[in-house]
Amino acid sequence: MQIVTPYLLFLGDVPDALAAKTALGIVDWRPEWCVGQLRLPGCKADAGVPDMTIAEAKAAGVATMIVGAVNAGGVLPAHWVATIVAALDAGLDVASGLHSRLADSPAIREAAERSGHALHDVRHSSERFATGKGAKRTGMRLLTVGTDCSVGKKYTALALESGMRRAGLDADFRATGQSGVFISGRGVAIDAVVADFISGAVEWIAPAAAPDHWDLVEGQGSLFHPSFAGVSLGLLHGAQPDAFVVCHEPTRSHMRGVAHPLPSIEEVIALTITCGRLTNPAIRCVGVAINTAALSDSEAASLLRETGARLGLPAVDPIRTGVEPIVAEIVRLYGGSDKPS
Amino acid sequence: MQIVTPYLLFLGDVPDALAAKTALGIVDWRPEWCVGQLRLPGCKADAGVPDMTIAEAKAAGVATMIVGAVNAGGVLPAHWVATIVAALDAGLDVASGLHSRLADSPAIREAAERSGHALHDVRHSSERFATGKGAKRTGMRLLTVGTDCSVGKKYTALALESGMRRAGLDADFRATGQSGVFISGRGVAIDAVVADFISGAVEWIAPAAAPDHWDLVEGQGSLFHPSFAGVSLGLLHGAQPDAFVVCHEPTRSHMRGVAHPLPSIEEVIALTITCGRLTNPAIRCVGVAINTAALSDSEAASLLRETGARLGLPAVDPIRTGVEPIVAEIVRLYGGSDKPS
Repeated sequence: MQIVTPYLLFLGDVPDALAAKTALGIVDWRPEWCVGQLRLPGCKADAGVPDMTIAEAKAAGVATMIVGAVNAGGVLPAHWVATIVAALDAGLDVASGLHSRLADSPAIREAAERSGHALHDVRHSSERFATGKGAKRTGMRLLTVGTDCSVGKKYTALALESGMRRAGLDADFRATGQSGVFISGRGVAIDAVVADFISGAVEWIAPAAAPDHWDLVEGQGSLFHPSFAGVSLGLLHGAQPDAFVVCHEPTRSHMRGVAHPLPSIEEVIALTITCGRLTNPAIRCVGVAINTAALSDSEAASLLRETGARLGLPAVDPIRTGVEPIVAEIVRLYGGSDKPS
Repeated sequence: MQIVTPYLLFLGDVPDALAAKTALGIVDWRPEWCVGQLRLPGCKADAGVPDMTIAEAKAAGVATMIVGAVNAGGVLPAHWVATIVAALDAGLDVASGLHSRLADSPAIREAAERSGHALHDVRHSSERFATGKGAKRTGMRLLTVGTDCSVGKKYTALALESGMRRAGLDADFRATGQSGVFISGRGVAIDAVVADFISGAVEWIAPAAAPDHWDLVEGQGSLFHPSFAGVSLGLLHGAQPDAFVVCHEPTRSHMRGVAHPLPSIEEVIALTITCGRLTNPAIRCVGVAINTAALSDSEAASLLRETGARLGLPAVDPIRTGVEPIVAEIVRLYGGSDKPS
């Protein structure tokens, strides 16, 4: 899936910022792509970019309107349809992260056919993939893995992209979830792919590349999550990472949505290496990213220090401390850039 | 997916028995469900059941016509459509294992709507599943796992169903592939499910049951296959097996469709236990099923003897020796039937 930038962010009339978190995440990581926002009367979210009409957005060079907010249930509210139809008729593509498909609305489907502009439903994969081959590809790859779902795997991969680029490395974030697809303009919501094609889809997401190029692949789920471990394993095999970073949330008492306790970071490292060797015998852990938001400054500092010492790895909070120690470890292990930084 | 029995087997005009292996497999395991076969002129396959017309099948009580043969490519030949339409109009459901959907043919779709009879595409899942919960369910479960794809996992599970029933145990085969769905009249082609729902679909396939009931879950792929291991892991977590049997083909030099070598049986046992403990801490291996078809009698006997001694487990060839040693091990470990056998 390839989404043409720049974007107009459509926030609808959602009641709070949380309902617009997809749009807010795009502004966080790709402000240069976010030309403006379009809000309906009553909207309580604000992406912090200029309000504009569809005509103004078109005149400003916008290519795609992103439906970057969800109401409860993830379906498309009927009173949002007219805005989406108007965007298509004005010459924009429309991309959505809703559970329901844009084309399930007859008015939207007809407008897309009439205008010839594209509809992208990032939660639904229309791409046809081959099954995974498992053969080693050129280029370097890093995967973020987790002790659970929703522990910062996307954030960590994006922070590493920024940090590695600052260090002069050639690095690209590779999206495997819907928010990530908007942020990179390309990718696949891997949990929406038919099961037989999980690893094949990841081989498409992170293809062969130049020897010193890094793909930073967004992880999903956890090898220890009883609902989603199959997705995580297919993603690991398809990504064939040289390096991985374990993401963790230290205050969580059980895994999201189930009663199971979290695995230890050591267990995640061991099983990721055991399984990951199948498609990359050189796989190794290069760091740990811990979300310490719930801890005080001193608690966070001592947890990171203790974890790093115990594992012999850089341990960071991507928000609180940044990921530079992990970038330094990558440069130490695999070499830096030949380019002047 | 629930397919109403008994069946009329439609073989089309395929050029050999291999192209009709789905139908032949149903006759092997469920002869009592196979009332007749319908063959077009030129058909070179024979399921060994009476040839009959659709009208004769309907009069004989048939509920569903099974499209149990495939031509090259797995698509529906245009000249098969009229027979399928006639079956629907005569009052039969139609179930297909083809890659293309029956309803993609307008004539078939219209006939289904007109007649009110069901179309089942077992390679496509229309069922909506919940994500896996991972909670322990009542009842006993056995999963067949493999060193590779296509090493006898379905055959072994079906042979165990026969053997355990003969021993007086309450045991049901649970299908996770298209041929298995026809043989059990129920199940899901698990590799066709959306990735997020692999383990949830298996929880639906093998639900909570009486404490002494055994579900014998058909395995898919291998935890060591780089194309399909995600499916295998989701299946393992969803099945939460108490017991598993490793299936193996000893003459294979590399895994199907890829360049990777086969893992050892010991590696499969170790990783299955490591991962399977997540949803069933009591998981254990109860036997090995080896396809020795390519070996002489004496080679087969010594391989089974040597493997069994090395692993301390019953080692059988389900076709050559039968699975009774594994059934005996199950009875020894978990208890037999209270019913007189």
